[in-house]
Amino acid sequence: MTTPKTTETETAAMPNFDAGANGLLPAIAQDAQSGRVLMMAWMNAEAFEETLQTGQATYYSRSRGKLWRKGETSGHRQRVREVRIDCDADAILLKVDQVGAACHEGFASCFFRVVDSDGGVREVEKRLVDPAEVYGDASRKS
Amino acid sequence: MTTPKTTETETAAMPNFDAGANGLLPAIAQDAQSGRVLMMAWMNAEAFEETLQTGQATYYSRSRGKLWRKGETSGHRQRVREVRIDCDADAILLKVDQVGAACHEGFASCFFRVVDSDGGVREVEKRLVDPAEVYGDASRKS
Repeated sequence: MTTPKTTETETAAMPNFDAGANGLLPAIAQDAQSGRVLMMAWMNAEAFEETLQTGQATYYSRSRGKLWRKGETSGHRQRVREVRIDCDADAILLKVDQVGAACHEGFASCFFRVVDSDGGVREVEKRLVDPAEVYGDASRKS
Repeated sequence: MTTPKTTETETAAMPNFDAGANGLLPAIAQDAQSGRVLMMAWMNAEAFEETLQTGQATYYSRSRGKLWRKGETSGHRQRVREVRIDCDADAILLKVDQVGAACHEGFASCFFRVVDSDGGVREVEKRLVDPAEVYGDASRKS
């Protein structure tokens, strides 16, 4: 028997968390139905494993220094339909069914602002929910 | 006159490159027509400015330590239709018209692999182009 050749694709199979600063890799959440990009957050190996195991998007909160089970406070969970990794295995794409608003500011997507070519910034969407009603006085994400 | 109240949205208007490690923020490229997520790369302030000014996606290559004008070698440029920033102004979303293949491995999107719930990885797409024909012997991105 011959030893199978190892290709770049095979060697870079799993997310390579060692490649990220502090073991964190960027994770993009995209609405599985509309294709809309909802948010960008961070995952460590533990968050990734939990996401695979539970089917619910789990990130790592850099500000809180712990796992962030999306929607735990707000109820705005993300059911994961598909997980992808990129060619270099250092970025993650989740296709999700989003409950409620992905953004902690109450917008469907965190990307609710357009930057024009002159650097001007415009809000181009309306809030779905009032963050104060979802989070109370706390403005933290969940 | 009263001083206008400063809202969170107003203060976090431009990308906050100081928030990123080494002044870099993640930038997601999404196909403007199909909504497909094509790739995730990094931008510094200079790359962002050049992207706004030229309308062509320009990133910062961490491996090469310099600006990466997407498609300069391969011809696989990204014409930028819209630039968005997220709620925290620490992630960037580009909606682009992609020429050729976004991925340096010859796939339309860098996210051509699915990770199953058991951690197994599957390629789910076919190459559009042969990287060797685009880049010669060099496997570097452009």
